[in-house]
Amino acid sequence: MKQMQYAGALSRLIGELARLPGIGSKTAQRLAFYLLNAPPEVAVRLADAIREAREKVRRCSLCGNLTDVDPCPVCTNQNRNNGIICVVQDPRDVVAIEKYRGFKGVYHVLHGALSPLAGVGPEELNIKSLLARLAGGRVQEVILATNPDVEGDATALYLARLIKPLGIKVTRLARGLPVGAHLEYADEVTLGRAIEGRREIE
Amino acid sequence: MKQMQYAGALSRLIGELARLPGIGSKTAQRLAFYLLNAPPEVAVRLADAIREAREKVRRCSLCGNLTDVDPCPVCTNQNRNNGIICVVQDPRDVVAIEKYRGFKGVYHVLHGALSPLAGVGPEELNIKSLLARLAGGRVQEVILATNPDVEGDATALYLARLIKPLGIKVTRLARGLPVGAHLEYADEVTLGRAIEGRREIE
Repeated sequence: MKQMQYAGALSRLIGELARLPGIGSKTAQRLAFYLLNAPPEVAVRLADAIREAREKVRRCSLCGNLTDVDPCPVCTNQNRNNGIICVVQDPRDVVAIEKYRGFKGVYHVLHGALSPLAGVGPEELNIKSLLARLAGGRVQEVILATNPDVEGDATALYLARLIKPLGIKVTRLARGLPVGAHLEYADEVTLGRAIEGRREIE
Repeated sequence: MKQMQYAGALSRLIGELARLPGIGSKTAQRLAFYLLNAPPEVAVRLADAIREAREKVRRCSLCGNLTDVDPCPVCTNQNRNNGIICVVQDPRDVVAIEKYRGFKGVYHVLHGALSPLAGVGPEELNIKSLLARLAGGRVQEVILATNPDVEGDATALYLARLIKPLGIKVTRLARGLPVGAHLEYADEVTLGRAIEGRREIE
């Protein structure tokens, strides 16, 4: 363990940074030295931001998106159409679609996609609260905006079979998205085309 | 600003992470989501480690290396030879040389190298306290282990001219190190050869 040679507190900081995904031991050292050499407020602000995010950020009890007020600002926004729910896998997908600006419905965040190999079944996803929202009878359309890959398609098919019997229109984003891509990296124009060209699942 | 769409506390965390060197906005998002989704103690331990390192880690008043006890454990170690001082640019270089295990002297950390273009002159480096240590008359040899590049060579030459008139042997690591490389990335064998083959500056 190379970092054991550093002072205890420095060694611990390097160790904690190296636990982060994609951060190796050299990068962890570089970041630790940066935090020690930068003005003190840089390190304090980062430490505070980590604690504050852990304490304040939670899932919206309606849509499941990450928020620090519950329900989240999208769910309580009077200018949004509660009759159209866009179902996505990840909070980052909400941000990607919001950049398009053309969608005025609301969201539902699954926090993942069905993946039997990874042990992710319907119970692991935020699906029950979606069905509870649909039971109110006011929703006209559910847009299944899961990723256009195997897990995302399987999740969309699973949800479509649950939702269509309720008499609600179920659509999937048009295949303007490159197959195998991740929604979060799509540009606004491509996303806009995909939302405008959405088609009903037969 | 994409992250403005996230909840306030999450957006601030992404912003603080994105200030770190080499961390772009996508990586900052990925790290922030990791910290939110990991067990709470992961985030708490990282935040604590940052604060603790800022509070406890300081420069050793003798050698300038980073430490949380002053003087540092190397300077107070009775088994080390205080008569041989190895001068390095960076605390990471101390760790690299300690891995070789064959060096039993002590260190002096300059925290940089002379670089007129970057505005780094002798006043910006930890040189005065080196001369104070040498004034005691007990030091037989100073090994100048600055990086084998332009700034490191210039710094070594500058120090050699200051130290040789004191009647102290001044050596430079052998050119077993690839020119232009950084000492911190050298392997133990190469570093060992360079230390063993060190030669006096004429």
